[in-house]
Amino acid sequence: MAIPARFTPPKRVLMGPGPSDVAPSVLQALAAPEIGHLDPAFLTLLDELRAMLRSVIGTSNELTVPMSGTGSAGMESCIVNLVEPGDRVLVGVHGVFGQRLAEVARRAGAEVVCVDCEWGRALPVERLEQAAAGRAFKLVCMVHAETSTGALTPIAPFRELADKLCALLLVDAVTSLAGVPVEMDGVGADALYSGTQKCLSCPPGLAPLSFSPRARAVLEARGTPPQSWYLDLSLIARYWGGERLYHHTAPINMLYGLHEALRLALLEGLPERYARHRRLSAALGLGLEALGLRLLVPPEERLPPLTLVELPQGADDARIRRRLLEQHGLEIGGGLGSLKGRAWRIGLMGASCTEQHVLLCLRALTDVLASEGLVEPSPRALEAAGAAF
Amino acid sequence: MAIPARFTPPKRVLMGPGPSDVAPSVLQALAAPEIGHLDPAFLTLLDELRAMLRSVIGTSNELTVPMSGTGSAGMESCIVNLVEPGDRVLVGVHGVFGQRLAEVARRAGAEVVCVDCEWGRALPVERLEQAAAGRAFKLVCMVHAETSTGALTPIAPFRELADKLCALLLVDAVTSLAGVPVEMDGVGADALYSGTQKCLSCPPGLAPLSFSPRARAVLEARGTPPQSWYLDLSLIARYWGGERLYHHTAPINMLYGLHEALRLALLEGLPERYARHRRLSAALGLGLEALGLRLLVPPEERLPPLTLVELPQGADDARIRRRLLEQHGLEIGGGLGSLKGRAWRIGLMGASCTEQHVLLCLRALTDVLASEGLVEPSPRALEAAGAAF
Repeated sequence: MAIPARFTPPKRVLMGPGPSDVAPSVLQALAAPEIGHLDPAFLTLLDELRAMLRSVIGTSNELTVPMSGTGSAGMESCIVNLVEPGDRVLVGVHGVFGQRLAEVARRAGAEVVCVDCEWGRALPVERLEQAAAGRAFKLVCMVHAETSTGALTPIAPFRELADKLCALLLVDAVTSLAGVPVEMDGVGADALYSGTQKCLSCPPGLAPLSFSPRARAVLEARGTPPQSWYLDLSLIARYWGGERLYHHTAPINMLYGLHEALRLALLEGLPERYARHRRLSAALGLGLEALGLRLLVPPEERLPPLTLVELPQGADDARIRRRLLEQHGLEIGGGLGSLKGRAWRIGLMGASCTEQHVLLCLRALTDVLASEGLVEPSPRALEAAGAAF
Repeated sequence: MAIPARFTPPKRVLMGPGPSDVAPSVLQALAAPEIGHLDPAFLTLLDELRAMLRSVIGTSNELTVPMSGTGSAGMESCIVNLVEPGDRVLVGVHGVFGQRLAEVARRAGAEVVCVDCEWGRALPVERLEQAAAGRAFKLVCMVHAETSTGALTPIAPFRELADKLCALLLVDAVTSLAGVPVEMDGVGADALYSGTQKCLSCPPGLAPLSFSPRARAVLEARGTPPQSWYLDLSLIARYWGGERLYHHTAPINMLYGLHEALRLALLEGLPERYARHRRLSAALGLGLEALGLRLLVPPEERLPPLTLVELPQGADDARIRRRLLEQHGLEIGGGLGSLKGRAWRIGLMGASCTEQHVLLCLRALTDVLASEGLVEPSPRALEAAGAAF
């Protein structure tokens, strides 16, 4: 066969729903020379990594590890370790990732009670409570930050609901972790998963996960082994814990990268990091509105790292995103699920959350949308955002 | 919390059962800037990567992809996509990875017929045929290259057996791919998986996988969805195939690395690569024997990329491996399963398969074992290997 040339990626600015731009020191960390997954130096890295991960998640849970897969593997890990066939699981669905949770739980043999709620709004806990109808559940699942709609939902009320239903509380924090406070122990979540390619600004490929002692007790009391061997946390904990027992070969270089990404988050300071995401997201929102665009989510329910903006009337979704990419090197995300073709997803995550990113995005959108005759060519979007910096 | 320093790995030479040393250009590829998983440039990379992967696997199978997990995720992917509850699966077990296949199949609801065979020998097809006792099976599973014992088993006879049993043939090629001919289409395997951190000399984190049209037909005719959503090949094929439908976020940088590692394998030439592994493995074996050590596997059943050597009488496994690591920067592998404490696993894989590696390993072993009083201090191991180069 003809052997392709070495791949050189084009220069891009990533402002979609993830991956986000990766800091140079994280990319350098990925390229550090290989060492073994049982090397004492590597085991030290794992210990440091876990300590940092606990800090970012806001937990003291012993069972806190990055799973060897992407965010969806984190989701599946939580479900298959906690659910046994026939268990009743309550899932709030207000976007694609709630749908996915329900599907994963069904495949694990759960009796899933799915509560369909409005997309683009926070998840209403009272709707879940009604649907529960007083029955006991094994698990209540909620998506903290819906990556398909840009809605942020407070976790604490779902803890209260889970208590009423004698259930564990499972939280999807894929797009919130390291961009929005998660505070796992503070809000009382029992199981939580995330991804690395969002506000942590590490490449995709790992899924941070944490189980509370209560979730761990449920795991240990299982009557059947989890249906997945690869994601079996009882086995994985023996590698990450004291025994260092081989389960699968850890993804060494990805873990180098995550170690560095966590360091960067903590060196910045979590409160400072959250404030940066809030401040620049607000500026972006003002800029987009000054351009005449409409944001999908009401202000008080918006997820700072991800802004959903409706397409202007008559806009050609694919052509506009292609022009942004080709003419400005800018990637923004298309809509997902029922929002496909109706909204764009603009990310301000981690290293992609800077004043420069906000300005580049608004300038590029003004340019392309104006040349398509969809908005007036005017500096007012930049002015509105700049005034909010 | 106290934020740890940037991690700098110690200098190591990796001659365990994987990960192997990673070529500088592969490490550089990992550190290329992030682009999106739906970026046209990235989709081109995926197409090139699949074409190269088919070449290395020796197949024209359309469904040939790297799964987003390590080798064990590749194993689980094959099982959960092909097995439905109640299906009968025949597994030859002559090491840890056969045991793992059986366990994964049981968790997928299969009725597993496990055939326990001698560790350190090739898998005897006639034993599997006896155990099958004429019954029909959904799947016959065999480990081509047993990473726990260093035994290599020809695949073709298992194709004949699978035909007799009306079964698909599933092959574990984790430690053979790119180091030993696999020739998937030539031997008629229906499903095959591997890992990246062995003879491909890419970091761990991806699992190359291929399904024959027959395996794909079985997948498409399923009555139930696979129990794993994350590993569901029907969904994953829609991202890798024409539709480019989002399933999970591809591990971008790991795929950069695999693209480059596949390029290196093809630039070297597969026949040349296999010959290098054979030649240097033979030299290593002669050197080890000259040192007075005993190889576990009979010559004609040895797996060139991985040599199992028995511990000398009275050797302290952990101390010797620690001394090799600390004094020579050399990692070799301990025994796994029933060989724990009884054998060492010495890898010559991909970038770790050079004359320098052979000499370094023999020198280090001579030094440490002699100072422990276990062998005579003598240059004869180096001489024996050098004469065979």
